[in-house]
Amino acid sequence: MMKVSAVISSLALTVAFSAPAMAQFKNSEHEVEYRQGVFTAMGVHFGRLGAMVRGKQPFDVDMAKRDAELVAMLSTMPWIAFSEESDGVSPDARPEIWLEMDKFKDKASSLQVQTKALREAAQTGDLDKIKAAFSKTAQSCKACHDAYKE
Amino acid sequence: MMKVSAVISSLALTVAFSAPAMAQFKNSEHEVEYRQGVFTAMGVHFGRLGAMVRGKQPFDVDMAKRDAELVAMLSTMPWIAFSEESDGVSPDARPEIWLEMDKFKDKASSLQVQTKALREAAQTGDLDKIKAAFSKTAQSCKACHDAYKE
Repeated sequence: MMKVSAVISSLALTVAFSAPAMAQFKNSEHEVEYRQGVFTAMGVHFGRLGAMVRGKQPFDVDMAKRDAELVAMLSTMPWIAFSEESDGVSPDARPEIWLEMDKFKDKASSLQVQTKALREAAQTGDLDKIKAAFSKTAQSCKACHDAYKE
Repeated sequence: MMKVSAVISSLALTVAFSAPAMAQFKNSEHEVEYRQGVFTAMGVHFGRLGAMVRGKQPFDVDMAKRDAELVAMLSTMPWIAFSEESDGVSPDARPEIWLEMDKFKDKASSLQVQTKALREAAQTGDLDKIKAAFSKTAQSCKACHDAYKE
């Protein structure tokens, strides 16, 4: 099941990365603004879920479902905004992203596998399952940040 | 049908607006960063759809479906980030938002009705239906920007 998901996610990601260049961004600054905005939103909803997982906020199953749904969706989005033109525009994004684009794509793909699993866990409403999936997703975030975020 | 959707959307929005204050934002600047990030992302996908609707880019039905899906989802998000504490933090948001919060909520609700209709139109793959729904959504964006965006 996970393997199938991984393959599907990987295929979807390949499409997202290799989509023909479109006038979707006004310029490189707009491109960076888009990806940073998506990451900020993802961080807010992942953080809100984290507060529930860690017992710092009461567990609200509907909120957890919504947060996981949004994180899953948002995690599919920022990858269109790492064009070569955007290399060097933001100091937060290390040049290794563009030097090792295949590795970066693999990590982006892994994240999406984990956020899908997190969404599925949230749908069960079982806090223990959510905790386990949250932890794996957090590891996926960290692996990419450690390698590619300043 | 539209009336029922409007009521449902309005109810959902009321919940989103009146949710108990949570430590979801680090501070007012983070709150503004979140809502601006969501609006930027919404603008990119709405803009990409607009380029297809206006014939400036070839019509790609899968891309149109994805853009409409993302716009519908993103349009439910920024409203948690208009707390009283965030009044005055960004010059882009006019103080009238907080002075007329009920009217602002009505416009936010109307937008979500239109983006739901846009998503449904995109699902049909019929460009004429997408054009009509796109136009109504654009009017909804403009009505709120004219009143509340600097």
